[in-house]
Amino acid sequence: MKQYTFGFDEVKRAHERIGQYLKYTPLEPSFYLGGNGRNYFFKLESFQPVKSFKVRGALNKMLTLTEEEKQRGVCTISSGNHGSSVSYAASLLGIERAEVIVPETAPKSKVERIEYFGGSVLQMGDNYDEAHAQGMKYIEESGLVYIDAYYDDPKIYGGQGTIAIEILEQNPDIDAIVVPVGGGGLSTGIAVAAKAVKPQIRIVGVQTEACPAMIKSYEDGVCYEEYPIGDTICDAVVGGIGALSYAILKDYCDDLIEIREESAARAVSFMAKQEKYIVEPSSALTVAAVMDHAERIGGTNIALVLSGGNIDGDLLTELMVRY
Amino acid sequence: MKQYTFGFDEVKRAHERIGQYLKYTPLEPSFYLGGNGRNYFFKLESFQPVKSFKVRGALNKMLTLTEEEKQRGVCTISSGNHGSSVSYAASLLGIERAEVIVPETAPKSKVERIEYFGGSVLQMGDNYDEAHAQGMKYIEESGLVYIDAYYDDPKIYGGQGTIAIEILEQNPDIDAIVVPVGGGGLSTGIAVAAKAVKPQIRIVGVQTEACPAMIKSYEDGVCYEEYPIGDTICDAVVGGIGALSYAILKDYCDDLIEIREESAARAVSFMAKQEKYIVEPSSALTVAAVMDHAERIGGTNIALVLSGGNIDGDLLTELMVRY
Repeated sequence: MKQYTFGFDEVKRAHERIGQYLKYTPLEPSFYLGGNGRNYFFKLESFQPVKSFKVRGALNKMLTLTEEEKQRGVCTISSGNHGSSVSYAASLLGIERAEVIVPETAPKSKVERIEYFGGSVLQMGDNYDEAHAQGMKYIEESGLVYIDAYYDDPKIYGGQGTIAIEILEQNPDIDAIVVPVGGGGLSTGIAVAAKAVKPQIRIVGVQTEACPAMIKSYEDGVCYEEYPIGDTICDAVVGGIGALSYAILKDYCDDLIEIREESAARAVSFMAKQEKYIVEPSSALTVAAVMDHAERIGGTNIALVLSGGNIDGDLLTELMVRY
Repeated sequence: MKQYTFGFDEVKRAHERIGQYLKYTPLEPSFYLGGNGRNYFFKLESFQPVKSFKVRGALNKMLTLTEEEKQRGVCTISSGNHGSSVSYAASLLGIERAEVIVPETAPKSKVERIEYFGGSVLQMGDNYDEAHAQGMKYIEESGLVYIDAYYDDPKIYGGQGTIAIEILEQNPDIDAIVVPVGGGGLSTGIAVAAKAVKPQIRIVGVQTEACPAMIKSYEDGVCYEEYPIGDTICDAVVGGIGALSYAILKDYCDDLIEIREESAARAVSFMAKQEKYIVEPSSALTVAAVMDHAERIGGTNIALVLSGGNIDGDLLTELMVRY
């Protein structure tokens, strides 16, 4: 296993690299959250061209490829936001050959999203594990450059961390950031960068009760690189955590809060019906945290990282009907 | 009745005036519309701070007030997007006294939106007509400057027309713009400005079948300043048209299309479930026009003006369930 280190320099370089390709995402005040001397702001990664923060890390990584590597082309294994991000980043960088491997069972809508940005989709295996096994073999044989979807890589963390630089430029009064925690790349990138720019800022991570892998890892003193997943709508923040994040995050994160699935569902509906933004359930964990744990989050001007907007239309409708 | 003229100079001046207060709204490619050599782009006025284009006209108008008028304060009569826009524009310009008159029956959510931006709400009368009669009397007595919600004013048209300047800067290849037509300020402002910048551009106006006042006005050669309103969800584009718009629009608009209410409803649901944007039914008329009349619209790179995002959460849910 590779050993990495990660620090603010990596984020600063990422910020310089990706700046000419990606616009700052909006930081918009909430209409309905707040009061009692607190103001909340939405950092809307759902407004990225791929509707997910993941384009930051993927693009930063791909900007460090050599010309020879870009000529060879890139490949990844992901039907989700990472797959679209690699496809989109390749189009931005003029990388002609960009292939994304997905299981044969991947929904048509996800395949279309990847192809929309110019990448080719290869369908392999009946599930993600099979796609991964066959995909890795294919990548080795084809000579394409593998852009890892597992993220435990400082270039990926650096890209995600650029969100913190943007937030603190957009509103220097922000004194707390709430961020969803999955594998840990997004939260660690943001936490390290935010504390470097403004040491007194509060960083609060949120996880779904269906898979509180980071919380349990710290409780148990074990880096759970795999973790069981309960019933969840927060599919973007489940599974195990990265070793790099485990090693770093605890020193930069002031609190980690476990959020109920029902609260995440309510928060998705609230965001659509009231605030008029469509966000993924995993993103809505930050909004749910405000609804259930405002005191614990603290802060006066609080940024909520809304990490993406790719929610299935039928699920969205169901949540809006229910809550 | 005042006689106005209106031309591109008015739009250019508005663009200079409001530029330091309002960011350009995004012009984002559609994922799902298009093909057959056509590309569609959403001009997302739903991303204005007040979630409506109307802030452009109101702000432009208020930027032309004298210092003495700003000291006196402003007042308008509107529970909708114009009311919020005046409230917001007053806060941007440091106008301390901004009062918005609404009927006593105005929904709490609308009152809260106006107050959110700093304006005071005065409730008068049981309906809009009563609010208007009592409100005009109050404004006269109070000495506040009236910011007309009826829009037949070149300063308002000029503000709305800035959308065209933004579109053609953001993507000079745009060769058609589809715009909802209500009173005519938005469509006329855009049409005049767009043709000044790019004479060969196509401008297509869309109206709901529930109130095709502009279409019928031109058919009948009569400026219908009042027009009957059928059952509709497109409440932002109903009622009569402005005399200024009637006099001008026909020379700048290549086609006017009547859109079915059901198509507007389907388009709202499509935008939320597929494209992940929440837009008002009146805005969705432009999307519905693409679904039903793509050939008639024509163009290769087509901008659809999505004029606002203030749709009631329950109505949104209902449309998403139905379509």
